[in-house]
Amino acid sequence: MVLKVSKRGTVPPFIVMDVLREANARAKSGEDVFHLEVGQPGTPAPSAVLMAASRALSQDLIGYSDAMGIVALREAIAGHYKHFYDSELAPERVMVTTGSSAGFLLSFLAAFEAGDRVALAMPGYPAYRNILTSLGIEPVPLPAGPQERFQPTVELLQKAGKLDGLIIASPSNPTGTMVPQGHFQALVDYCEAEGIRIISDEIYHGITYGERATSVLELSDNAIVINSFSKYFSMTGWRLGWMVLPEDLLRPSECLGQNLFISAPTLSQIAGIAAFECYDELDGLVADYARNREILLEELPKAGLERLAPADGAFYLYADVTALTNDSSSFCSRMLAETGVAATPGIDFDPMRGNRYVRFSFAARPETIEIAAERLKNWLA
Amino acid sequence: MVLKVSKRGTVPPFIVMDVLREANARAKSGEDVFHLEVGQPGTPAPSAVLMAASRALSQDLIGYSDAMGIVALREAIAGHYKHFYDSELAPERVMVTTGSSAGFLLSFLAAFEAGDRVALAMPGYPAYRNILTSLGIEPVPLPAGPQERFQPTVELLQKAGKLDGLIIASPSNPTGTMVPQGHFQALVDYCEAEGIRIISDEIYHGITYGERATSVLELSDNAIVINSFSKYFSMTGWRLGWMVLPEDLLRPSECLGQNLFISAPTLSQIAGIAAFECYDELDGLVADYARNREILLEELPKAGLERLAPADGAFYLYADVTALTNDSSSFCSRMLAETGVAATPGIDFDPMRGNRYVRFSFAARPETIEIAAERLKNWLA
Repeated sequence: MVLKVSKRGTVPPFIVMDVLREANARAKSGEDVFHLEVGQPGTPAPSAVLMAASRALSQDLIGYSDAMGIVALREAIAGHYKHFYDSELAPERVMVTTGSSAGFLLSFLAAFEAGDRVALAMPGYPAYRNILTSLGIEPVPLPAGPQERFQPTVELLQKAGKLDGLIIASPSNPTGTMVPQGHFQALVDYCEAEGIRIISDEIYHGITYGERATSVLELSDNAIVINSFSKYFSMTGWRLGWMVLPEDLLRPSECLGQNLFISAPTLSQIAGIAAFECYDELDGLVADYARNREILLEELPKAGLERLAPADGAFYLYADVTALTNDSSSFCSRMLAETGVAATPGIDFDPMRGNRYVRFSFAARPETIEIAAERLKNWLA
Repeated sequence: MVLKVSKRGTVPPFIVMDVLREANARAKSGEDVFHLEVGQPGTPAPSAVLMAASRALSQDLIGYSDAMGIVALREAIAGHYKHFYDSELAPERVMVTTGSSAGFLLSFLAAFEAGDRVALAMPGYPAYRNILTSLGIEPVPLPAGPQERFQPTVELLQKAGKLDGLIIASPSNPTGTMVPQGHFQALVDYCEAEGIRIISDEIYHGITYGERATSVLELSDNAIVINSFSKYFSMTGWRLGWMVLPEDLLRPSECLGQNLFISAPTLSQIAGIAAFECYDELDGLVADYARNREILLEELPKAGLERLAPADGAFYLYADVTALTNDSSSFCSRMLAETGVAATPGIDFDPMRGNRYVRFSFAARPETIEIAAERLKNWLA
């Protein structure tokens, strides 16, 4: 008998990963590639992290950890909330995860039943809706444009019907925009009144260009925070992140974590403790991103890419390319083939309007960004 | 409004992790503990793996990898099938995963819809049924006893009603028993005829005490193989594993992996390549397990623990403790408190009959096993 393939298993590809593969194939054939597609720092982990990892390799067994994570790491993460937000946080509320990816999976399973409806801004990180779909949860897109800074609003929520959850990402991927401070409180108030669980993806906190980002923890004890060592801490491949959980979800999340993951990578956990001694080094990287952002904000308009989302943070510029194409996927393919600049078509983030958008990541080194901008200018001239 | 906690999120704890925490608390208070509870080698990764990791820390960016895994690692894994099973395997069929845990999640999502029914031997690894349940898939227990070597049989499948999948673990956790060779072919034939997808958990391959284990790959191209670096390769905390996928599940699994995990830990992947140069060192560890097994098979009966499952592989002895207690949980708690020997009550593996069983892991160092056996003998005398 023919075996079936699950329908819910056929989620769309994460297109940026396909672009990355195309770019890597080009690089392997000896041609130059400028990686403005993938949202990962062009730098290794901070030096103290590398040293701690090196030490652990010779001294530690690197066995399983407790499913909630190594206690010293949970304490260091709690300390980060004091340092960064001036907030008190009990380490018992912190769960270490295998990147933010595991945080999404665990929090969605702990908070939502199959059939529940979870709202999220469109454009947004594609894995949100693909993970939700694979778990039988209905993603409810909130079509947000420049007038909403591409973020959820109470008005959009009111139009969305009965909801069980809301994902907030401020700063957002792909736009870098943040929820304005007063609006964040209004979203929290609305959700508390309506029984909507908030999941706040705070992975880009620390990478902002004006005021610092607000954590939902400063506004509510009922929300779930997802964060990661991949962006500000420059540790993508280490697959390390954390959640801050409300009391009612702690034990369910622990049991799910034991069964679904056992524990996050132990070497990454041990090394990650040292990341919280590296604020100066990490803020130096943010200064580089700020410089990259300035370069692109200066140069992209000269290349005809004038309609850019106002990026308050993260390392992305989301460009409306309507004037140039109505098919951003083939536009990106041509751009890679003819200039070596890899960027991500907007359909990854917005299946409805993404064909008119391209996301440029400026997480690479400044010298890469400079040459890429020059190439784009010449290509589009 | 009060926020809800998902019903499907409230899976039972993985009790061995709770026992581990109790044991660690005891160790922290300065008392001695003999870890016969957790299924992890008492040894670090092979030396070549540690060296490769150390080298990568200074030379590699440790960024995201392709969702399918680093090509050189996929090739090395394919090579392992030649070395170990004398089988040809295309590296394209190999997907690197974040431990076997991620392999289960991805394969269950790729192969089964919500509402599908997947059979599995009871007793068995508890995460199977807890992951299935959290994904809305119905685990169908096949109550297997000593007469079936605690393994699925065609007869048990015939009694189980309409099935969509079957999980086979040979050698099994918690019993260490294997599916007899002829029976394995019969299971495959039955499943192919009935349209039942087989998922073969081969994590204990390499750790056997008589003939080597059979891979389902030797019998079928439609089954999914799950394997890991955690047991034979002694790399638990590295969170590294792999799947071998049939053609029809390759692209769905890749897309799910991109969205749910991004990629497996990169440092572990780079280091893991070197694991396939370490067969001699690893077979030395298996010789230690064999010695541990002999010690326990000799000493446990003297302690009154005579009814032991015939462990063909893995590093477990599953003991029927009916003669001593009908509540193996409190039995294990007392054992830990009074002897320092930690073991896992059978209810983790069999909610129905597990109260009459205890699993002893003998993955620790031989000196630990010797003292533990001595303590048990004195305690039960």
